[in-house]
Amino acid sequence: MKTGPLIGVIGTGEDDARLCAHAEEVGRLIAMRGCILVNGGLGGVMEASSRGAKAAGGLTVGILPGNRPEDANPYVDVPIATGLGEMRNLLIVRACRALIAIGGGYGTLSEIALALKTGRPVVGLDTWDVAPDMERASNPAGAVKKALAAAGML
Amino acid sequence: MKTGPLIGVIGTGEDDARLCAHAEEVGRLIAMRGCILVNGGLGGVMEASSRGAKAAGGLTVGILPGNRPEDANPYVDVPIATGLGEMRNLLIVRACRALIAIGGGYGTLSEIALALKTGRPVVGLDTWDVAPDMERASNPAGAVKKALAAAGML
Amino acid sequence: MKTGPLIGVIGTGEDDARLCAHAEEVGRLIAMRGCILVNGGLGGVMEASSRGAKAAGGLTVGILPGNRPEDANPYVDVPIATGLGEMRNLLIVRACRALIAIGGGYGTLSEIALALKTGRPVVGLDTWDVAPDMERASNPAGAVKKALAAAGML
Amino acid sequence: MKTGPLIGVIGTGEDDARLCAHAEEVGRLIAMRGCILVNGGLGGVMEASSRGAKAAGGLTVGILPGNRPEDANPYVDVPIATGLGEMRNLLIVRACRALIAIGGGYGTLSEIALALKTGRPVVGLDTWDVAPDMERASNPAGAVKKALAAAGML
Repeated sequence: MKTGPLIGVIGTGEDDARLCAHAEEVGRLIAMRGCILVNGGLGGVMEASSRGAKAAGGLTVGILPGNRPEDANPYVDVPIATGLGEMRNLLIVRACRALIAIGGGYGTLSEIALALKTGRPVVGLDTWDVAPDMERASNPAGAVKKALAAAGML
Repeated sequence: MKTGPLIGVIGTGEDDARLCAHAEEVGRLIAMRGCILVNGGLGGVMEASSRGAKAAGGLTVGILPGNRPEDANPYVDVPIATGLGEMRNLLIVRACRALIAIGGGYGTLSEIALALKTGRPVVGLDTWDVAPDMERASNPAGAVKKALAAAGML
Repeated sequence: MKTGPLIGVIGTGEDDARLCAHAEEVGRLIAMRGCILVNGGLGGVMEASSRGAKAAGGLTVGILPGNRPEDANPYVDVPIATGLGEMRNLLIVRACRALIAIGGGYGTLSEIALALKTGRPVVGLDTWDVAPDMERASNPAGAVKKALAAAGML
Repeated sequence: MKTGPLIGVIGTGEDDARLCAHAEEVGRLIAMRGCILVNGGLGGVMEASSRGAKAAGGLTVGILPGNRPEDANPYVDVPIATGLGEMRNLLIVRACRALIAIGGGYGTLSEIALALKTGRPVVGLDTWDVAPDMERASNPAGAVKKALAAAGML
C-alpha cells in the first residue's frame, strides 16, 4: 500500500451545520485523492471531515488532547491520545503537509498561526482572515485543490 | 472498517538480526489480530515490526522524533512527524493500549519505565529486566498473546 | 523569599527600536512589582524585556526553543532549554498568570490565540488586533497595570 | 547577578525520611555552589531538596506536571506549570546540565534513562542501579561533587 501525504483539517468543535457540511465534503475529497486525513479527533468540523473521508474509503487519524483513545469520534481509524491538551494542536500542524482551516475559534487561530510560522501551507474556508500569506477558498473543492497543490500533489 | 486498538512495539534502532526477526514476527501477529501497530518509525526493531505488519496486511503508524515524515521507514503508513526528539517516546507510550519491548537501550528503558509509571501494560522480549510488574515472554507469539490479553482482547 | 506570579512577555525577536523600548520598560515595571518575568529567552522584545527586568533587580526566566541554555540572551537568569521548537510557545502561555504581547509575527499570534483559548489574560501593545476579548494598552505602564489587574495583583 | 548552571534533583515523591534527608542536604550543597536547583516541584525528595536550597539562599525551579502553579511546594521560587503530565520529566532532564537521582520509582527510572540517552550526566544516590554509565555516590556531598564535576564546575 502506498499512502498519500497527511492533510490536516482544523476548525471548530461546534456543530455548525454549514461549516460541518463544508468539512464533510473536504474530508471526502481528501480521501478520494488518496491522502490521509488528520484532525483533532473530536466533534464538529473534526467529526464531519472524518465522516466524509470514511464515506470515501479513506484513512483517518485523530490527534486527541486527552489520554483516552475512546474519546475519538467514531470515524477516526487511528486515535492518537496525547495527553497534551491544547498543545496537541501543534502536533497536528507539524504532522501535516498542508492544512485546511474551516471556521473555528482561538484554537484554530493558534493552529493557523503556527502553520504560517513553521511554513506549512494552510488554506482558509470561512475562517480567520488574519494573514495575507494564507490562501483562501470559497468552497470545499477549491480548498482541497489549493491544499493539494501546496502539498505538491497537483 | 472497525480497527483494533493500538499496540506499540518499542526497541533498538540497531539492525540486530535476532531481535529484528523477533520484531518482524511480532508485527505480523499484531496485524493478524486486527490491531494497529505503533512504533517510532525509524530502523532496526521499528522497521522490522512495521515490515511484518505490512506483510500481514496491517496498518502501521510511526511516531517520529524529527520534523520530516520522509524519514519514516518504507513500511510506515502513517508517519507522524513530531519534532519532539526523544520526548516522542512518551507519545508512543500514551497512545498505545499495550506495548511490547524488544531489546533496546536507554530510550527503550525510558519507554518501559513510563509505561509502568502510567499504567500501560508492557511485555518484555529479550529486553531490560528492571521491573517485577513487567510481564516477560520468551518468544514473539507469547509476547503478542500477553500484550493482547493485557489490552483486554483475549 | 516570597516571589510574585509569573508574567509573560511575548513578541517579536527582531530588533525594532520602538518595540524594544516598550519591552524594556514593561520588563522593568514587572520586576518593580515583584513579579517574575517569563519570555522565550532569545532576542528582540525577549532580550529587551529581560534587560529591563534585570535593571530593576528582578528575576527572569527564558523558555528556549532549542537544547542549549547558552543560547539565552545575557539577561536570562533561568534558561529552560526545552528542545520543543515553536511548541515551547505554549509552555510560556501555560506557565504565566498573565501575558503582555508586544509587536510580533505569527509566533506571537499563536501565543495570543492559545492564551485566549486557555483563559490566560493577555494585554496587547502595538500587536495583533484579532480578538475582542483581548485587552489593549497604549503604553508600557498601561499594559503592566492591566496585566497585573488581570493576575489579581491590583 | 551571575547564576550558575541548572542542576536537577529527581526522585521519589514519597516522604521517606532517609531519602528526604539526603535530598535536603543535596539541595543545600547545590545552592551553596551557586547553582540553580531544578526539580518536579511536588513533595518528597522534590520538596526536601527545594527546602535545603532555600535554607542556603539558593534559587529553586519546579517543573510541574499540572496546570496550577499553586501546586508547587512552598520552597519553589519559579513554578513552571506545564500541563504535560509525566512528559514534564523530560523537560527537567533537558533543562539541566547534570542530575542527581535519589530513590524513586518508575518516573525516576524514566528520567535516568532519558538522561543517559540524551547524554546528560546523572549521579545516583540510593536509586536504580541499571546503567554502568551512571555514576553513583554514597552520600549527598559525594553526589553533588560528582554532578558538579560532570557539569564542568570543578
